[in-house]
Amino acid sequence: MKKPVIAVSVGDLNGVGMDIILRAHAAVSQLCRPLYCISPVMAQQAAALLQRTLPEDFETSSVEGDFVIEPGKVSAASGRYAFDSFRRAIALAESGKADAITTLPIHKEAWAKAGVPYKGHTDMLRDHFGKDAIMMLGCEKLYVALFTEHIPLRRVADSLSLERLRTFFLDFHRAVGDEEVAVLGLNPHAGDNGVLGDEESMITAAIDEANRSIGKTLFSGPVVPDIAFTPAFRSRYRYMIAMYHDQGLAPLKALYFDESVNISLNLPIIRTSVDHGTAFDIAYRSEPKTLSYRNAISAAVSLLGKR
Amino acid sequence: MKKPVIAVSVGDLNGVGMDIILRAHAAVSQLCRPLYCISPVMAQQAAALLQRTLPEDFETSSVEGDFVIEPGKVSAASGRYAFDSFRRAIALAESGKADAITTLPIHKEAWAKAGVPYKGHTDMLRDHFGKDAIMMLGCEKLYVALFTEHIPLRRVADSLSLERLRTFFLDFHRAVGDEEVAVLGLNPHAGDNGVLGDEESMITAAIDEANRSIGKTLFSGPVVPDIAFTPAFRSRYRYMIAMYHDQGLAPLKALYFDESVNISLNLPIIRTSVDHGTAFDIAYRSEPKTLSYRNAISAAVSLLGKR
Repeated sequence: MKKPVIAVSVGDLNGVGMDIILRAHAAVSQLCRPLYCISPVMAQQAAALLQRTLPEDFETSSVEGDFVIEPGKVSAASGRYAFDSFRRAIALAESGKADAITTLPIHKEAWAKAGVPYKGHTDMLRDHFGKDAIMMLGCEKLYVALFTEHIPLRRVADSLSLERLRTFFLDFHRAVGDEEVAVLGLNPHAGDNGVLGDEESMITAAIDEANRSIGKTLFSGPVVPDIAFTPAFRSRYRYMIAMYHDQGLAPLKALYFDESVNISLNLPIIRTSVDHGTAFDIAYRSEPKTLSYRNAISAAVSLLGKR
Repeated sequence: MKKPVIAVSVGDLNGVGMDIILRAHAAVSQLCRPLYCISPVMAQQAAALLQRTLPEDFETSSVEGDFVIEPGKVSAASGRYAFDSFRRAIALAESGKADAITTLPIHKEAWAKAGVPYKGHTDMLRDHFGKDAIMMLGCEKLYVALFTEHIPLRRVADSLSLERLRTFFLDFHRAVGDEEVAVLGLNPHAGDNGVLGDEESMITAAIDEANRSIGKTLFSGPVVPDIAFTPAFRSRYRYMIAMYHDQGLAPLKALYFDESVNISLNLPIIRTSVDHGTAFDIAYRSEPKTLSYRNAISAAVSLLGKR
């Protein structure tokens, strides 16, 4: 079988991205043909700083805007480059030259300095494709999709509606296929029969409608949130849907911090990402962990298999 | 040194309480002198059902209201007995006949059937002592105290105030002594400098005021909630304060479900409890885990040492 081509955006070059890429290149090349969105000059510069040589099979799709790497520094040039590398990866996937994309971390402030009008990758993807991406984090043992994401906690409850929940469940099903999914409740004890909040009746109705529409009972819940991640429960579900950011991510990261990846579902292209930041504090100085990146590549390959 | 006396309320006798007590009696007796709040007749009945004999040193403080145990059944008689056992334990601690109390699980519906006007132990303690108990869960590795508890998620944000937060921090300090405590933010990414909510500025102010008032920097934060429980971070703090129920308990139970205990702080008496329910489904049938109970006893003994 031909290996899929994964376009890799290199992230903020003042951070740990290229170090991770070079360390993991051999392992990653077992799973796919990585196509790095970086100019040969910048790749050489980063490799030299890391006292490494570029592998012979280091394939690139060049990006304009070469600059001098300054480890750990927030800069407009580096922010712009990271954005352009990301855009190149998307273009490669859209034109069919890559089968999926994997992104290394960008620095939000560097993007802002460069005048990039997005807070992060996911924002940009939503705008570019005009579609509600679903953000899912996790690893092979447990994936958690977020129904609401980067909004203040006080706005979470009012963001739930039967219509939005049902659409989310159906979109999610389309993205991951016939998998059993645990849907978390919103309130402590999943509302305790309405005593601690009543949004669970809406969640129940949305689950029922989604299952009916699919014709199978794939979605279960609402699950008591503080029970969902206990060993006995989580062993039964590989996919969960959390109602808000920290409900899903605090337990997920407590359990699987180093191995987790970030996946954008419900878009025309497959995009996976490491689930950590630019780590400016250790960039070009001490060894970064590569597990999340390797898992991000392998998640992309595995999602391609589902298509 | 004389062992402390711990009054043990037996919980719902149709559940797993007595099985746990009998299995753990020898281990628990190493740490304290347990004083069980149950009539000899009921203790005998439970032991017989479990095909066990009562230990010779099984000390009791008798409770009225003997009834026929029906494993796994929600009943008014059993609810009433559990409540009276709990009240007896409190009375023993108040009169100085016990140094602290440890409670086995009650069944909320059984309490309701018996006309007990409380949802659970903590409610009753608050009412009895007219004081805001602080609910803390966890184990020796990590304790999490809850700033808000059993309220709908939509009401959490408005429950925060500078005054309430500062009072909570100072009460907490009085209960656990000079320990370093991580205080979680309310919003995703702890508000991301106000972009995702601004309650963190209030939390910061309350932390500052509490530290100033104590004269030491014991409270830190607001910590990004989904980072707080990652291995690197949690290794630095044994105590955390969560802003709401599932923010603290979902990660805690993901990590330490079987070992966790529930502790009521800020009351005239020390009360610890197992952190699980009556497990009616296995009562008098299969072996319950005793770790949470043993840890509850040992947490009570350890808190007595801090007084």
